[in-house]
Amino acid sequence: MTTRTSAPPDELCINSIRFLSIDAVQKANSGHPGAPMGAAPMAYALWDRFLKHNPADTSWPDRDRFVLSAGHASMLIYSLLHLTGYPVTLDDIREFRQWESRTPGHPEYGLTPGVEVTTGPLGQGFANGVGMAYAERLLAERYNRPGHEIIDHYVYGICSDGDLMEGVASEAASFAGTHKLGKIIYLYDDNGISIEGDTDVTFLEDVGARFRAYGWHVVGPIDGMDLPAVEAALREAQAERERPSLIVAQTTIGYGSPNKANTGGVHGAPLGADEVTLTRETLGWPYEPFIVPQEALDHMRLALERGADAQADWERRLAEYRAAYPAEAAQLEADLNGDLPDGWADALDDLFTNEEKPLATREAGGRVMNAIAERLHTLVGGSADLAPSNNTMLREYVNAGGEKVAPHNMHFGVREHAMGSIAGGMALHGGVIPYTGTFLIFSDYMRPPMRLAALMGQRVIYVFTHDSIGLGEDGPTHQAVEQLIGLRCVPNMVVLRPAEATETAVAWRAAIERKTGPTVLVFTRQGLPVLDRSVYPSADGVLRGAYVLWESSGAPEIILIGTGSEVQIALDAGKALAEKDIAARVVSMPSWELFDAQPKEYRDTVLPPSVTARVSVEAGRTIGWERYVGTDGISIGVDTFGASAPYQRIYQEYGLTAERVAEAAGSLVRGGA
Amino acid sequence: MTTRTSAPPDELCINSIRFLSIDAVQKANSGHPGAPMGAAPMAYALWDRFLKHNPADTSWPDRDRFVLSAGHASMLIYSLLHLTGYPVTLDDIREFRQWESRTPGHPEYGLTPGVEVTTGPLGQGFANGVGMAYAERLLAERYNRPGHEIIDHYVYGICSDGDLMEGVASEAASFAGTHKLGKIIYLYDDNGISIEGDTDVTFLEDVGARFRAYGWHVVGPIDGMDLPAVEAALREAQAERERPSLIVAQTTIGYGSPNKANTGGVHGAPLGADEVTLTRETLGWPYEPFIVPQEALDHMRLALERGADAQADWERRLAEYRAAYPAEAAQLEADLNGDLPDGWADALDDLFTNEEKPLATREAGGRVMNAIAERLHTLVGGSADLAPSNNTMLREYVNAGGEKVAPHNMHFGVREHAMGSIAGGMALHGGVIPYTGTFLIFSDYMRPPMRLAALMGQRVIYVFTHDSIGLGEDGPTHQAVEQLIGLRCVPNMVVLRPAEATETAVAWRAAIERKTGPTVLVFTRQGLPVLDRSVYPSADGVLRGAYVLWESSGAPEIILIGTGSEVQIALDAGKALAEKDIAARVVSMPSWELFDAQPKEYRDTVLPPSVTARVSVEAGRTIGWERYVGTDGISIGVDTFGASAPYQRIYQEYGLTAERVAEAAGSLVRGGA
Repeated sequence: MTTRTSAPPDELCINSIRFLSIDAVQKANSGHPGAPMGAAPMAYALWDRFLKHNPADTSWPDRDRFVLSAGHASMLIYSLLHLTGYPVTLDDIREFRQWESRTPGHPEYGLTPGVEVTTGPLGQGFANGVGMAYAERLLAERYNRPGHEIIDHYVYGICSDGDLMEGVASEAASFAGTHKLGKIIYLYDDNGISIEGDTDVTFLEDVGARFRAYGWHVVGPIDGMDLPAVEAALREAQAERERPSLIVAQTTIGYGSPNKANTGGVHGAPLGADEVTLTRETLGWPYEPFIVPQEALDHMRLALERGADAQADWERRLAEYRAAYPAEAAQLEADLNGDLPDGWADALDDLFTNEEKPLATREAGGRVMNAIAERLHTLVGGSADLAPSNNTMLREYVNAGGEKVAPHNMHFGVREHAMGSIAGGMALHGGVIPYTGTFLIFSDYMRPPMRLAALMGQRVIYVFTHDSIGLGEDGPTHQAVEQLIGLRCVPNMVVLRPAEATETAVAWRAAIERKTGPTVLVFTRQGLPVLDRSVYPSADGVLRGAYVLWESSGAPEIILIGTGSEVQIALDAGKALAEKDIAARVVSMPSWELFDAQPKEYRDTVLPPSVTARVSVEAGRTIGWERYVGTDGISIGVDTFGASAPYQRIYQEYGLTAERVAEAAGSLVRGGA
Repeated sequence: MTTRTSAPPDELCINSIRFLSIDAVQKANSGHPGAPMGAAPMAYALWDRFLKHNPADTSWPDRDRFVLSAGHASMLIYSLLHLTGYPVTLDDIREFRQWESRTPGHPEYGLTPGVEVTTGPLGQGFANGVGMAYAERLLAERYNRPGHEIIDHYVYGICSDGDLMEGVASEAASFAGTHKLGKIIYLYDDNGISIEGDTDVTFLEDVGARFRAYGWHVVGPIDGMDLPAVEAALREAQAERERPSLIVAQTTIGYGSPNKANTGGVHGAPLGADEVTLTRETLGWPYEPFIVPQEALDHMRLALERGADAQADWERRLAEYRAAYPAEAAQLEADLNGDLPDGWADALDDLFTNEEKPLATREAGGRVMNAIAERLHTLVGGSADLAPSNNTMLREYVNAGGEKVAPHNMHFGVREHAMGSIAGGMALHGGVIPYTGTFLIFSDYMRPPMRLAALMGQRVIYVFTHDSIGLGEDGPTHQAVEQLIGLRCVPNMVVLRPAEATETAVAWRAAIERKTGPTVLVFTRQGLPVLDRSVYPSADGVLRGAYVLWESSGAPEIILIGTGSEVQIALDAGKALAEKDIAARVVSMPSWELFDAQPKEYRDTVLPPSVTARVSVEAGRTIGWERYVGTDGISIGVDTFGASAPYQRIYQEYGLTAERVAEAAGSLVRGGA
């Protein structure tokens, strides 16, 4: 039994990938050896002969992107990174899945040089890659000039059966087919095995036919362990510039393991010492664990040389471009750095007057985005078919006259999940600041990519409108209740729920300026009074998460805390209390996370520990509000599902009224806690 | 301009549907008139000529199920329900989208007689219907006997473009194709318009080809407003018993509206008074709003007669079946009622001995399920390709010898989202108690159907294993952090995280016995000591959400609260404190929801208000724990993402140790709060 490859060093290289994977999993006593063993030939073909990359510079902007959507096959990429000369050492590989190693259980962006995206949750990498390809095309359309193809790279990926069963991959594939993202080339590792055994038990569909239906260019099925076949398929895919390509590559999971190949058992568990020995015998591998034959290493390390040449060539071309188009070149560089142009937010200063009529924060948000976009052309995104409701359309990019414009206004379709993943991939690619739009309730459809964006520290901006029972008639299926608190609980996520238009402008500013992670912007459907900032303190308080919006004279007896549309209720209640000679303070708290990050001194200024009589009001679950109102305080919110009716009626019936807030406050102050 | 129907009363009936929809939306000044106007002919054909139902008895078990997956077209079904004689009056329709009406913005199960499932979030109804069809087949295979087709009905649906863009529909379609759920007949309302306009902007795929690739029987495209064409298509679909059917039915959204037909504007907004008038003229409709011509009503109300006849026929056949197979008939009835057999839980009493070795709760869960399943054959479900890890396989139904057995062990594939929706549909169908399985982190993929099951009050049991950083090496992409609190925040969801094997048995019992909503069971990957219940109090305390597990003598100075795997840490800490003469109480709190539902007296017994020194320990976000430990207490948890390493190391590094808990407790008691 030999691998179906032509000659050394190919076979040596492929088996080096296999045995690094086998041995690392065995040593860790944990991991997934099967996929690397089967996919090693195709991965080798791709990395050795097609992938444009420079292991010495992982930040080269025009490198091809490689997405290991099947993230459980992490040892495949770690082996490739080590062998081609990235700073991933044999020691790193020996430390596979150990505390603080560079080789965690699943590939993690930012932790391992050369890993372009954190993968593991299936389907996500597939969809992230679609976002990368969208960003590539957008930058190419914006910056390339005749004879100057400065942005021109592929997005390659390896996907598993599991990836293609996931709905998010289906959504992203349909999107990519419609939008003709021809730079995508995915290898589908069609090994017919998943954890529960033969995929026939639940996956009898014709994957190739499905992708053709999406408008993809499907190659194969080919023998995915036959190098010439893989190379021919990759060449064919490269030649197709219009449609994204899926290469159906049949492989044998656990190839080389005499007893475990082609079984579910080899998917996610070490082979075991005996089977490792047998696999060495079967594949004719005389080397000790973690020993790579020099010939294989020498061959694969040529990637360094090729990469340096390729990058040097690109830099030479970039210099020519810079000479011909200095402004564009400077702008491209700034975009790729994620820099914000000087004065990018100036238009926000006087966007809302002190005599503004009541305005839904979704409408305010739309005005803010359009004001920002005049200078910040990197802002790119769209909605999951709710743009007119989300107010997320950028007017200057609406193509009225049939003229070709950059595809700034993205139509994600009713595909919230892929929208989240595509936006994450766009951020990873760089050069753009992606945003998404849908109703807050449908954040439930996009939790996985939002979490991954937070884990990867990516600047993605999620606009969620229709944020509560305040959306009214559409009823409980559409009314967010637990979503606000649910999103606040995601580590490294910042959630902002501004109270009205002027806070909305500052919230958007905070989102744009946050480079270390994603931001959720939560807006109302219903109109809200715009606060006159000549009367109230500056909305810049939003940047600190919470601030004192108003108080009656004298030391406060009670603190009323509101967020979003309920700030006005708190304000009305505070004023009503003041008329009854109860000294009330009203705090607007658009963001828990930003407030919690403030120094204790500031927090104690806003919420003095001495004032324990506190009431919160927010049209969402009250769980968690004890942190701010204490166990003796009162939280007014929505702890059941919503209802279908005009929103004013629902607010009344659910007790989200200034009267009830004032009454609760009164009971705390006058009635005792 | 007339509808392309043959003769009265067809056209009268179809236009009655249209104008009830138009007028109700207009009166509510809110809603979606476009889809009912275009889909009225096909809906009429289905309800008038195919649907087996009895408007006078919505609980007839063998009725066909109708799923309006495009739930925004709610006036379509309300019109049909009224016209065919369900208890939905014209007054109800006049109250469309008003407080406490029977006609909410989107169809709600349990609120409106004849609504089989709550829809609105797109794609869900499509996938729920797949679950209904699976349950139908399972019951048919179990109970039908030659000549006695007691369970034999279709699942019909109407789906929109948006439904078919959603990934959950893709997943469910692939599942239905693989499992040959031939009783599914879905009409795809292919109107080419969504909210952002022409679906061409983002949905160019060939839907029919895609469904053929899934193994579906695709009919059309047909003219969906041509009655004979729709009838022929439905007959063809009925004749196909092997493959599920998708009828691609092209329609004109907003048909009849001279200025708004075929635009995005007619999708989700009232026509406006003038356009309503023009539409009346165009369609030749002389009637006032909410007036149904008697001829139309007479014709459609024949459904009552046909329904009574059909049900009487079925009841006669059931009587024959009962005579021939009395035991089966009695069992079928019990299954449909959701009754639990006497002594169903007896096997749990001694399932775990007092000398049990450490056991992961996922393993304990597997033993519990298998013990229960011996008597409770209605328990049906499976995993999203993680059955060996989730321990969710029911051994007695594993088909070793090739013999045909009921499909108890479902293979959902790597399709968590559809798994949730399919399980919800099975519960709605009745006759089974569905369960699902995956890692806790992947609950993020299935939030929408879980929420809907909670909203509908359906008994679905979600098993989530690998519930924290305790899963170890797979790393942060697979380690739940915010999921526990996130699920607790869903209204009407009960979340149970048992501490060890004996609590696991009681948690399963609670889940099975809960008929009014779904239950989440959260289990560990890692082994946990099994508590000797001759030493510790009964694990029945789980049923009250929290109970005193252990305390040192004397009035407690400090309360340590743990859940799941961290109960043992709390216990160790409590004992260490006792050795230092600090009187500690250890509370196991597997369920916030069950505890919060206890009378205050009980809650105060477990957590006496006088003891304010409290520490919680749980391997998840600490947000919300203030409710139980107060603002002066200490919550030890995981407020960042996890890490890849052996779990013992992660627990150590993250400070989830008895030492740290004891130290924190000591600081509260001896150091002052």
